[in-house]
This record gives sequence, structure tokens and C-alpha cells, in this order.
Amino acid sequence: MFAVDPVTHRFDEQIQSKIDQKTKPKGALGQLEGLAKKVAQVQLSRDPNISQLHIKQPGLLVFAADHGIAQYGVSIAPSEVTRQMVANFVQGGAAVNVFCRQMGFNLEVIDCGMLAPLGAKGVTEHRLGNGTEAIHLAPAMTLEHVRKGFEAAAEVVERHALSGCNLIAIGEMGIGNSSSAAAIMASLLDLDVQKCVGRGTGVDDKTFELKKALINEALKMHRSKLVSPVHVLAHLGGFEIVQMTGAILAAAERKMLVVIDGFIASAAALVAVKLHPAVSDYLIFAHQSDEQGHKLMLTHLNATPLLSLGLRLGEGTGAALALPLIQGAVNFYNEMASFDSAGVKNVV
Amino acid sequence: MFAVDPVTHRFDEQIQSKIDQKTKPKGALGQLEGLAKKVAQVQLSRDPNISQLHIKQPGLLVFAADHGIAQYGVSIAPSEVTRQMVANFVQGGAAVNVFCRQMGFNLEVIDCGMLAPLGAKGVTEHRLGNGTEAIHLAPAMTLEHVRKGFEAAAEVVERHALSGCNLIAIGEMGIGNSSSAAAIMASLLDLDVQKCVGRGTGVDDKTFELKKALINEALKMHRSKLVSPVHVLAHLGGFEIVQMTGAILAAAERKMLVVIDGFIASAAALVAVKLHPAVSDYLIFAHQSDEQGHKLMLTHLNATPLLSLGLRLGEGTGAALALPLIQGAVNFYNEMASFDSAGVKNVV
Repeated sequence: MFAVDPVTHRFDEQIQSKIDQKTKPKGALGQLEGLAKKVAQVQLSRDPNISQLHIKQPGLLVFAADHGIAQYGVSIAPSEVTRQMVANFVQGGAAVNVFCRQMGFNLEVIDCGMLAPLGAKGVTEHRLGNGTEAIHLAPAMTLEHVRKGFEAAAEVVERHALSGCNLIAIGEMGIGNSSSAAAIMASLLDLDVQKCVGRGTGVDDKTFELKKALINEALKMHRSKLVSPVHVLAHLGGFEIVQMTGAILAAAERKMLVVIDGFIASAAALVAVKLHPAVSDYLIFAHQSDEQGHKLMLTHLNATPLLSLGLRLGEGTGAALALPLIQGAVNFYNEMASFDSAGVKNVV
Repeated sequence: MFAVDPVTHRFDEQIQSKIDQKTKPKGALGQLEGLAKKVAQVQLSRDPNISQLHIKQPGLLVFAADHGIAQYGVSIAPSEVTRQMVANFVQGGAAVNVFCRQMGFNLEVIDCGMLAPLGAKGVTEHRLGNGTEAIHLAPAMTLEHVRKGFEAAAEVVERHALSGCNLIAIGEMGIGNSSSAAAIMASLLDLDVQKCVGRGTGVDDKTFELKKALINEALKMHRSKLVSPVHVLAHLGGFEIVQMTGAILAAAERKMLVVIDGFIASAAALVAVKLHPAVSDYLIFAHQSDEQGHKLMLTHLNATPLLSLGLRLGEGTGAALALPLIQGAVNFYNEMASFDSAGVKNVV
């Protein structure tokens, strides 16, 4: 459904040389140097004539949905909290609101299929149902749901792109969705469930064991059907994870930068990369969360996250917090003097 | 010379309760929660009646000086680069300028004793000499230099405080100063030089060995004189490290937040903490640099840095990049809804 091109490498030498001529020892800005190079590759793929990098109208999308498995006691919170938190997003009181205001993100909240709609202004209704089926008992959804979810996400990304946005951040809210994300990870990377499951926002030992058992059941039940990343989404996914995957693919297709928040957003990124490996060229991983499987997932995605603050909140909070670092990479690339222009002896 | 009081713990329970009532699982904002608590403790120590935290007129001080040891080949760059980079700061072309503009830092550059003054507007001249003595051959400076350096730094901090500033960040520029910082660390923490010395901005193997040998010589030569942190500064320090130490002490005395940049700023923080352990209450460690000894130094300071981006530039760049995280901690504390106010079920 999406056509994702790799970024151009035609300007790699020029980009690197520009970075190396800045008044600093080679590599002294650490990860920000690779980040500037990535932003430059993406933006020069869109327009080979630009001389300055830019972050324009950054958009943070929070995809919300409910999960059948949440009825079986895998989370600290009941499913109703998904909707309560979406109401909180609309009122501007959640962590992601605070950080979006601070960082200059345009926040959009998308109901992808909570148990019941909120029916309030300020939520984009792209509902695929009233929560997914419990994945240890049935497929989460049909392939048709996945297709519709991809379409809905592409529409959201298109709207942001048309208003001038060139960076999309991906966040989520959905009680139970770390179970779905762990199942997707175990399936796509062929890993033991043990290595993929964490405590989400903080479950106790007993709940943790139950969570692992149910995910194992889900994987066993659907094993023969998990023949493609799209099938993995349909059987183990969530309505928000489907739309996050679609948004990542749509943004990469449009050569926008895509900032990935935490564990659940990374699972969506993993699906997108499995569908189109070139998606990786557009991804910036905001942070490594406190969720057990996240580090391993990032390793499999060859990702070096920008932050590691022990966050385990989701919503897109880590993605929002990472924006000043991305902007910092853009700014040093655009604004720093070169050895020549500053009259500083190039010692490296 | 400085009277540093510990922060008050009278409001600790109220602060923690306020953080725990925010619409998020307990602890889900990771390091930002401890950071918000620290900011609250500092600011409630200044004024027990405030209800909102604030970062006001943040100031980033870059202390520059030259080091006698740099003449003996311990760095990738000759001492003249210190002055060239200070000229670059004045013209606004260095990394620290870019990040200060982005983050809203008021930048002040202080010549603490470069080989020769720049003689340009925009540099505060608090020169203690034309570079220090080479520490492997003589004491870096006299105790009188240290006293004067402390006074000069207190004057700078006072000026910022009077203009409304309540957060000071500490950065530096000085070819050769990672040698001085490593010597201070080895002396104050009684550690093997091997563990304290790194490659600075990037020396090769041969230079690295020479650097270690000269620092060992310096420690051996002055051992019997290193009877207090002030004596350590006089024998092994640099003019900028002395003034950084003074600025940290002066800011802590005034109950301002103090953001510490990289390895050299951390060495100054270490001296300040050894002089007045209560200084720790005011310190925020911006990042863990790529410099070998920095991780160990941070461990000894019980510090958990906010960023770890592999930076090895100094100037205060890491401190500037960390400001949005500190502001984020302040903002979530001030602005996030509580479970009660948002009608979200408190599940933790």
C-alpha cells in the first residue's frame, strides 16, 4: 500500500564534510552529528537544492485504542482509563500536553477504537471497533481492519504534511497495549516471550507471570497464521498499533522525519521496517524506556535512542522531550561557524 | 569564603505527594520526577511560599584559560586555539552559541587567564595571569590566585542573580584542561591516574601515554602539599577551574540551581562538594561525556546525568542541551492535571 524509497546517499560526502568543518574536533558532538546527517539525508532526498535544514510544524500523533486482553488482568489499570486519559489529553492536562506545549508540537489525538467513543471535540475519530478481541482467544482483528487502519493513518499524515509539517512523532495510549507490542516483537523477531515482555506501567509479579502466559498462548494459537507482518498485526496487534504502523509508513513515503516514542511505538516501527526496510532511513528513536524488552527491540532495529530517562509512560512523552535535541542537530548544522569562517586552526 | 546551606526537607512529603497525584503511574516520568523534586527543594528553600516552580533568566558561564602543561604535547590543539575559540564565542559561531540561542540561555564568556587577552567586547576579563604554570613542573598557581578567582566568580554570579537569574550553567574552554581535571580527580578521590585520564577531545595513543605520565609526575611532585581542596586547586588546577569552582559555590550559597556540563565542570563541582558537601543539593549533572574518567567521577558524586550523547566538546554544550529537560520537569510539576482534577481513576 505504501511506496517507501530509501534516502539518497548522493550528498553523504558533502554532508559529512560540512559537519567536519564546524569549529569543533571531529565527532565531538557525539550522537548529534549522526542525527544531523540523518536529517540532512532525509531533507536532501525531498529537495536536493536546500542549503538549510528545517523542522517545520512538527506534529505529535497520539493513537488510542482498547485491547481485549486487558479484561484478563494483564495491566495495572482497567480499560476505562484509556478513555479517561484521552479526555485528559483533550483538556490539556496530561504529560504529553505539557511537553507538546513546551516543545512546540502540534498534538493530535486519534481514537482508533476505544471501548466507547469519547464524543468530544478535539479527538479524531478513526475507530476500527470497540477494542480488539483478546489475542489469546481470537485474532485481534481482520485483515480488512488493518487495511482500513492504514488508510485512516495515511489521511492523518497527509493532513499534517499539507499544512507544512515535515516531522511526525508517534505516541499512544491504550491499556493492555504493551502485551500486544510484546507479542508482535516475539513473533517478528522470533524471540522467546520472556525477553519481550515487561511490566508495562508497573504490574506486580503475579500479573507479570499471567501476562507472559497469555502472550505465550496467543503466539501458540495464531502461530500458523503469522505469515506476514500484516498478518502479525491482524492477529496480535491493536487498533492503535495498526494506525501507528500506517502513520510511520505514510510519513516515510512522504520523506518526513518520524520520531518513535517508546516500546509500543517501537513495535509499530518494527512492523513498518519489516514491511519496507527503507523506513529505517526516516526513523529517529527518541528514547529507551524502562520497559524490559525495549532495549532488545532497539538493538534489533539498529537504533541508538537519544534519551534514556527511565520513562515508562508512553503517550509520546519521550518523543516530545527529544525534539530539542533534533532541533539542536539541525541548528548546529545550519548555524555553527566553520574553521575557515571563524579563523580557528583546524586541528583535526 | 562561602556559606552553603543544605536545602530544606520540610516540604519533601508535599512535593512527592504532588508528583504522585499527577495523571500517570507512580514513577512513570523516570528521572524527570527526581529532577522536579530537586528543583522544588531548592526553590522552596529560597521561598517556602511559592506554589509554582520557575526557571528564570538562565545563565551559561563559559570560563576560559590556558594551561602550562599544554606546551608539553598533551592535547590535539595548541594553546592558541583557546583564544581563537573565545573569539568564535564572541562572534556567535560556536556550538555553545547555537545551543544557548536555541534554549534561551544568557551566555557570558569569562577570560580567566588565557595566554593573552582577546581585547574584544563581549568577554569579561577576570584574568589571573597568562596561563598557569605546567603542573608537572611547578604549582599551577598560588593560594592567592585561588582566592582572587573565587572572588571574581562570585561577582559574576551575583550580577546574574541580581538580574533575576535562578539557574547557572557551568562550561569551559581551555586547551589542556582535561589534564588538570584528571589530576584533581585523582587527587581528591585518591584514585589511580589511569582511571581518571581520558583522550580529551581526541588524542592518539602516544599523546595519551604522555598525558598520563605528566599527570603522574604532577601528582608525585605536589603530593605533600595537597592538604585541602583549595591546595589541590592551587597545585593542579587551572584559572578557569578555580573560577568554575567559585561560581558553583557562589550559586549554591544563593540557592540557585547549578547545571554542570562535562568532565572539567564536574572536576570543579567535585572540588566545590569537597569544600561544602551541601553543594550537592543544588547540582544538576547535564550529561555523561565520552571522556573516560567522567562516568567514574559522576559515580563518586552520586550523580545520574540527564543525557548521554557521547559529547566531548565542553564549552557548556551539554548543559545547554539539558535545559529543556529541566524545564520539562518544572512544567510537568506545575501544569499536569491530578487524578482528581482530571477525573482519571488513580490506579497506583
